[in-house]
Amino acid sequence: MSVQSPQSSPAAPSPLIAAAEAAPTTPALVVELDALDRNLARMVEAARSRGFKLRPHAKTHKCPQIAARQVAAGAVGLTVATIGEAEAYAAAGVTDDFFIAYPLWLDDGKRRRLAKLAAEVRVHVGLDSVESARRIVGTGASVLIEIDSGHHRTGVRPADAGALALAASELGLTVDGVFTFPGHASGRGSTVSSPLSPVETRERATRDQDAALTEAAASLEESGIEPRVISGGSTPTAGLARPGRINELRPGVYAFNDAMQLALGACELEDVALCAAGTVVSVPAADRFVLDTGSKVLAADPNAWAPGYGVVPAYPGSTVIQLSEHHAVVQLPEGVGAPRHGDRVAIIPNHVCNAINLADELVIVQGGTHVDTWPVAARGANA
Amino acid sequence: MSVQSPQSSPAAPSPLIAAAEAAPTTPALVVELDALDRNLARMVEAARSRGFKLRPHAKTHKCPQIAARQVAAGAVGLTVATIGEAEAYAAAGVTDDFFIAYPLWLDDGKRRRLAKLAAEVRVHVGLDSVESARRIVGTGASVLIEIDSGHHRTGVRPADAGALALAASELGLTVDGVFTFPGHASGRGSTVSSPLSPVETRERATRDQDAALTEAAASLEESGIEPRVISGGSTPTAGLARPGRINELRPGVYAFNDAMQLALGACELEDVALCAAGTVVSVPAADRFVLDTGSKVLAADPNAWAPGYGVVPAYPGSTVIQLSEHHAVVQLPEGVGAPRHGDRVAIIPNHVCNAINLADELVIVQGGTHVDTWPVAARGANA
Repeated sequence: MSVQSPQSSPAAPSPLIAAAEAAPTTPALVVELDALDRNLARMVEAARSRGFKLRPHAKTHKCPQIAARQVAAGAVGLTVATIGEAEAYAAAGVTDDFFIAYPLWLDDGKRRRLAKLAAEVRVHVGLDSVESARRIVGTGASVLIEIDSGHHRTGVRPADAGALALAASELGLTVDGVFTFPGHASGRGSTVSSPLSPVETRERATRDQDAALTEAAASLEESGIEPRVISGGSTPTAGLARPGRINELRPGVYAFNDAMQLALGACELEDVALCAAGTVVSVPAADRFVLDTGSKVLAADPNAWAPGYGVVPAYPGSTVIQLSEHHAVVQLPEGVGAPRHGDRVAIIPNHVCNAINLADELVIVQGGTHVDTWPVAARGANA
Repeated sequence: MSVQSPQSSPAAPSPLIAAAEAAPTTPALVVELDALDRNLARMVEAARSRGFKLRPHAKTHKCPQIAARQVAAGAVGLTVATIGEAEAYAAAGVTDDFFIAYPLWLDDGKRRRLAKLAAEVRVHVGLDSVESARRIVGTGASVLIEIDSGHHRTGVRPADAGALALAASELGLTVDGVFTFPGHASGRGSTVSSPLSPVETRERATRDQDAALTEAAASLEESGIEPRVISGGSTPTAGLARPGRINELRPGVYAFNDAMQLALGACELEDVALCAAGTVVSVPAADRFVLDTGSKVLAADPNAWAPGYGVVPAYPGSTVIQLSEHHAVVQLPEGVGAPRHGDRVAIIPNHVCNAINLADELVIVQGGTHVDTWPVAARGANA
């Protein structure tokens, strides 16, 4: 099996393409370790140089080995999405400080699990309602008030943060501060039909985040509560966030990057540290081929800024025009010949978080050699 | 936690909604067992009454307990998508006859695995190229020629089937017959922009399938090869397929149905046997609520015929307007009040196959009672 270079680009294969070649079989998710470590170090430095603490979102990789590298590189703790993710990382001994950045509603089983976890490590959880606050009381977890900064998903309005913080405090909860996820930076959801460019979209979301968190922090202070933590996202906004009241960032995707971040201009191709390794299983036409990396490997997330279901770096100008559970159909640009049956082809997922959540393990490659296999220990830990 | 009925529909909760209520926690995938068994029995009868053998596609559920019920109900064997799925079902002793309906390209490891499997059970595999045939020779697996009947994914043209069958036969392979997947029946891929209605789309794909398989079977005969198996899909076409040359059907989704099949008119709401059980974690507005069933539970598949990311049966007219990894944002129709924090809400995924592939287990409910938990044993078995 040889990597096919497209006829229009006879350059040496990139490290990511070479990494795909090193996977024992396909389909598989492959991590180019040097690119991963560069990404981790660069984000720590970018945060530190502007006075932000870094609390990476570990839902992206769900992998204790990578979380340990993030902490070793200077992260102050981890962000996670669920109690189950925190349990997995705590069991691995990665850190003793977790923020579950989600407005948890605790049934009796989750109350017990959260209390057990909070007896072992520090746990902060998201909060956007008094109803949820009542269920958190007594677990030992502290809370951060979630603010809607424009993504219109969860969270209270900035001006309402102080009232909720006060109510939570009166119920006996410790309020650490405020947080938001400026998810509209990625152009998904409410801004899909926006006339803004990707960079303008990221810049606007970053401004929205700054304004919302600043107003929310002031709202807490007016209620007599100190906003010790003022926490923002995210990979597409992290590089644009300005020093100010915000004192913590929670990017996740930056560890690997993906086709969405490429389209947003938040990274370059050489910053992409993960791909799916696929094999050409069918060549139904001279300008079209089919890989075994379907939606059960790549996930079916659309890219708001680019057509298709991923980027095929060896074939610039190609489009993944169709994605089934076990098929990715790649349309080639004019004049580029298709690879042969059995050729190995790297494909970058649109959204790396959902791709990794499909895999039981990550194939770790360094310098073109398969050096390790890391379990996706928190895979499927949705509760 | 009580199931909230919408104000506009005070009827008793459906069995599916009651099943969601019985899940121990959320998010979880819940199977309403009586509906599942009705679906299994009905498809066997529908096939048998028209002279078709039934070989259900077990990639949908990846669950040996359900495969065993399909075989017990009268299936002649199982269809799977990967060697790994066949290995999982063979290890469970569910059947001794597998069709891997995929144009496998065998690297050395897969050659060894396929040979080992074919020494234990009967294995037929899909084939659409001479290149792939060369790698299958010597494994003990027989082949079916894959035909493109209009989905334009993999497969040869019907008229080319005989030549490929002859070449495979000359290489030493046993050719069992021909198969196709009329995936354009679902309106995804090439027919998304079609002016046809859902029912017209299904009818056209069924006619395409009949014509393509009939031509392909004749092409084999002209090459002197008997097409013993002439095999078609699929849930949206199974009810429309006419007796003729086709002698086998391979539907998969019918075991549960999903929001896509509802939109296609291939099932009714009472035929849906699986939902995600979610909890209301946030109520950001009077006409909007947020469930904990995100794309890591439902999968992000779009529905070509309906907006949003699933159907919420307790709230007719609602739309899942936004799907993040851990959030499903439900927009209510005018005049319908939102449920309360902590309420349990059932949501039907757009595409059940990809949803199940995210779960480690299925919560089995009968008569509103949680009676069992079945492992998704072949989850992630993509290779």
